[in-house]
Amino acid sequence: MSTILKGIAASNGIAIAKAYRLVEPDLSFEKKKVEDAEQEVNRFKSAVSAAGAELENIREKANTELGADKAAIFDAHLLVLNDPELLTPIEDRIKNENVNAESSLKETADMFISMFEQMDNEYMRERAADIRDVTKRVLSHLLGVKIPNPSMIAEEVIVVGEDLTPSDTAQLNRDFVKGFTTNIGGRTSHSAIMARSLEIPAVVGTKTATEEIQNGDFVIVDGVNGEVHINPTPEVVEKYKQEQVNFDKQKAEWAKLLNEKTVSKDGHHVELAANIGTPDDLQGVLDNGGEAVGLYRTEFLYMGRDQLPTEEEQFNSYKAVLEGMKGKSVVVRTLDIGGDKKLPYLKLPEEMNPFLGFRAIRLCLEEQDMFRTQLRALLRASVYGNLKIMFPMISTINEFRQAKEILLDEKEKLKAAGVNVSDNIEVGIMVEIPSTAVMADQFAKEVDFFSIGTNDLIQYTMAADRMNERVSYLYQPYNPAILRMVKMVIDASHKEGKWTGMCGEMAGDEMAIPILLGLGLDEFSMSASSILKARTQILSLSKAEMEILAKEVLQLQTTEEVIEAVKKKTL
Amino acid sequence: MSTILKGIAASNGIAIAKAYRLVEPDLSFEKKKVEDAEQEVNRFKSAVSAAGAELENIREKANTELGADKAAIFDAHLLVLNDPELLTPIEDRIKNENVNAESSLKETADMFISMFEQMDNEYMRERAADIRDVTKRVLSHLLGVKIPNPSMIAEEVIVVGEDLTPSDTAQLNRDFVKGFTTNIGGRTSHSAIMARSLEIPAVVGTKTATEEIQNGDFVIVDGVNGEVHINPTPEVVEKYKQEQVNFDKQKAEWAKLLNEKTVSKDGHHVELAANIGTPDDLQGVLDNGGEAVGLYRTEFLYMGRDQLPTEEEQFNSYKAVLEGMKGKSVVVRTLDIGGDKKLPYLKLPEEMNPFLGFRAIRLCLEEQDMFRTQLRALLRASVYGNLKIMFPMISTINEFRQAKEILLDEKEKLKAAGVNVSDNIEVGIMVEIPSTAVMADQFAKEVDFFSIGTNDLIQYTMAADRMNERVSYLYQPYNPAILRMVKMVIDASHKEGKWTGMCGEMAGDEMAIPILLGLGLDEFSMSASSILKARTQILSLSKAEMEILAKEVLQLQTTEEVIEAVKKKTL
Repeated sequence: MSTILKGIAASNGIAIAKAYRLVEPDLSFEKKKVEDAEQEVNRFKSAVSAAGAELENIREKANTELGADKAAIFDAHLLVLNDPELLTPIEDRIKNENVNAESSLKETADMFISMFEQMDNEYMRERAADIRDVTKRVLSHLLGVKIPNPSMIAEEVIVVGEDLTPSDTAQLNRDFVKGFTTNIGGRTSHSAIMARSLEIPAVVGTKTATEEIQNGDFVIVDGVNGEVHINPTPEVVEKYKQEQVNFDKQKAEWAKLLNEKTVSKDGHHVELAANIGTPDDLQGVLDNGGEAVGLYRTEFLYMGRDQLPTEEEQFNSYKAVLEGMKGKSVVVRTLDIGGDKKLPYLKLPEEMNPFLGFRAIRLCLEEQDMFRTQLRALLRASVYGNLKIMFPMISTINEFRQAKEILLDEKEKLKAAGVNVSDNIEVGIMVEIPSTAVMADQFAKEVDFFSIGTNDLIQYTMAADRMNERVSYLYQPYNPAILRMVKMVIDASHKEGKWTGMCGEMAGDEMAIPILLGLGLDEFSMSASSILKARTQILSLSKAEMEILAKEVLQLQTTEEVIEAVKKKTL
Repeated sequence: MSTILKGIAASNGIAIAKAYRLVEPDLSFEKKKVEDAEQEVNRFKSAVSAAGAELENIREKANTELGADKAAIFDAHLLVLNDPELLTPIEDRIKNENVNAESSLKETADMFISMFEQMDNEYMRERAADIRDVTKRVLSHLLGVKIPNPSMIAEEVIVVGEDLTPSDTAQLNRDFVKGFTTNIGGRTSHSAIMARSLEIPAVVGTKTATEEIQNGDFVIVDGVNGEVHINPTPEVVEKYKQEQVNFDKQKAEWAKLLNEKTVSKDGHHVELAANIGTPDDLQGVLDNGGEAVGLYRTEFLYMGRDQLPTEEEQFNSYKAVLEGMKGKSVVVRTLDIGGDKKLPYLKLPEEMNPFLGFRAIRLCLEEQDMFRTQLRALLRASVYGNLKIMFPMISTINEFRQAKEILLDEKEKLKAAGVNVSDNIEVGIMVEIPSTAVMADQFAKEVDFFSIGTNDLIQYTMAADRMNERVSYLYQPYNPAILRMVKMVIDASHKEGKWTGMCGEMAGDEMAIPILLGLGLDEFSMSASSILKARTQILSLSKAEMEILAKEVLQLQTTEEVIEAVKKKTL
């Protein structure tokens, strides 16, 4: 039967493929008495050997496709799985207590896990994690459910999940994942940003995708209209294949502007830049006519691994991006970790409100070794292109001063050691905290540039978690409060002869672009896939007219009135 | 041995008494085999009967001191404790598996709890909670540790806790609790606000109070200097008794201003109001010369109970406060629940960032039955005094319009039913979200007054959870960003002929008062115990001079510079 789910169109385009569920399996079971303990032990042994075969297979694939480094974790799992000190007590318990294998496995493993976790020894604590993973795998065989393995995807699929975490997406193979759909999230959730960065269609916030879609279902993700079709009729498939063709045609039309400057109808030039996460994203920037990199999110370098990246690894990434952009501006944001982005090897305390917590620059100013390593890698890479450094989550002038002082200190040390460092590195800040927007006139005296991070700025200004469905109606980019803050920042920078960019989602939004042009925004940084569309739009707008529009919307009261005014002026 | 802990002075004064630990006891144990199962069953039976005796005792006291209503919960516990369907399987398991009573109790109870919790029946889910409580109590007897029972305190004590939740403090007997000290929290945590409201000395954020202080230790809480002395020498006790005398003398000095108006040196009158939580707080307001109630936090009516308060219960509380204030202004804040304030009987989803979540007016606009009940109670009470109604957590003009529309709708209905309702109720909003401060000029056209809630406004503006120690350095009331927002709000209200109050902690802060006076704040609402001190200060200040100071600090860059400027001008 064909079903249609409605969701939020998070990344443009149409994807058609089989479903792959990236969902934590249900491993719950009941503790039960068994009649025949011998037979139950045999059932347990079969599950162990099936889990072993599966692990061997995964290790093999990981070894050839991802390298020995990533395969090592599965070696550790195999060791656990063959350890008689774990297996024997499980079998004994089945026999002594006449209980089912699931409960014996779980209770015995939990005992070892809690024993190891309490040890004051990093190595033993990691063993606890291994036992936990192996227990899950054996349980899945006992219960006959499948544990998903995203890194092993080897055919074209549409990934279906509750939500996709940054580490989930880091494991996905870009060649095979044709689209995403998730239960939760909005246009600015990480899965949505990631989908746009990978240029694959996505629909998020469907609420029930994981309930409605089974592995292998035939699925269409309509990232233009925010619809997901499950096992559609042949007519619908035909229609969407045609839409794919149309979408490709429009892209071809936009592509004619690839090498054009972005100039308004009345001759005002703005810069259209791209947000990237890794050097792999560069090709997309060039293919879409990006004039710069307006935001290089360095945290992906730190994710999906088990220790901090070395200075050398970072240097190589930064150098690759700077060289790849051939002298065009590259704004690198220093590590923005914490909040919803965790690093397993950085032991941070659990927080009640992580979005209002110890993250980004707050963390870096305390974990200075980590911060200085990143800054050294950046400084050393600076001679390979046009580097700009940007600090995230700045809320006070003192934080900026401290961060800049550390940067200058590392620069002096490198120079003293004879290392080449550029003397033309601009140093700026993200404006994503209300205090910084309100104090922009003072900040403008000390920074070289601003980049407005609207995703966070909106959530703090409205006091509404952008990941929380219950308050998502308050995530209002066009609320006059937000537009007034954007104006404060732009005006403050211009008064001091500095420039302002925007690297939040709003910069690529066709409803916001007319206002931002009118407010005088200098640089618009967005998903590479949005650039050509934005260029098309800006070529059709008059800056002088948009200035009048901007002035008008700042005096309106509600989001709805702003949208009305923009539509009236530009449609 | 005498020990001194340093913490944050959260509520003025000196308290000297024995320690009472309000700490979750450690009920962990190891699962063990036992030699003599019969003996272990007997040990279990003794623990059950000791728990029973204890529960009888608590029920008795609760019945006489708190009423049959509160005692009923202990009846339910006693039923569980005498239920053979629970006890027999526990005893059987001890005998069959030769395990210790703790593990048999826990594992059997957990099975029942998870069974009951999964039932789609409110009554059965409550039984799960009862079993959990009873299990804890029996476990405590098996392990020989004590479960604290704050409602049973019957001698003078100083309460020592990790933190005190609103429901903890609701249970405390005011006659016997002489002071608080906690491990975590700051000046604006709920335990601190509560201490000031109860006018009992408190030191919060000591980090280690629960580790260092044992039940019965002799403790001095120095709420002036933020120190806690554990088992001090007689000399120190003597010194503090003298300080108590001095503190009382100073209070007597302040008390001379009890019936004075609050007028600056150059003749400008401001209103000093009090924040209250229940009608019981009224006496403190009158004893301290409060000119109004600037914030009546109605959520305490909803706490420490197992269902919503009825319209009648609410009506009686509101009427009591309005009558008690004899025509002086009473600003009632509608229900501000959610965030860190939960109601057990309102099933709200867990949120990743509750401070940015579904709370206060957001919740009330969706749970309209609950909201309308409160509004009706307020409207009916309005004829008994000078009522002003204030909506919390307003972030958009639409929210205010919706809330006001519901209020007017209830008013019309009451009038149509022949109920007397005042026609002079001012309707205002809390300004505690940055978007609302930035849009104050637009809000001022529609509201009757503003009250700035600095505790939240600061945390959202700086994007720093005020309860999170790691970022507490960013909780900066004197940051020029905050002061600029305060100015926006005050100026906007005056332009439309409206008034602005402040009901956050900042309103009673001697460093902030000179600036707030200079900015033109009309009403300062604070803990009743701070009013006379604030009046003393304002009588000594010139508004004209403070206007110059305010203008100056708005152009400074950091908190430190602002403090410096205030000190220079006023000391």
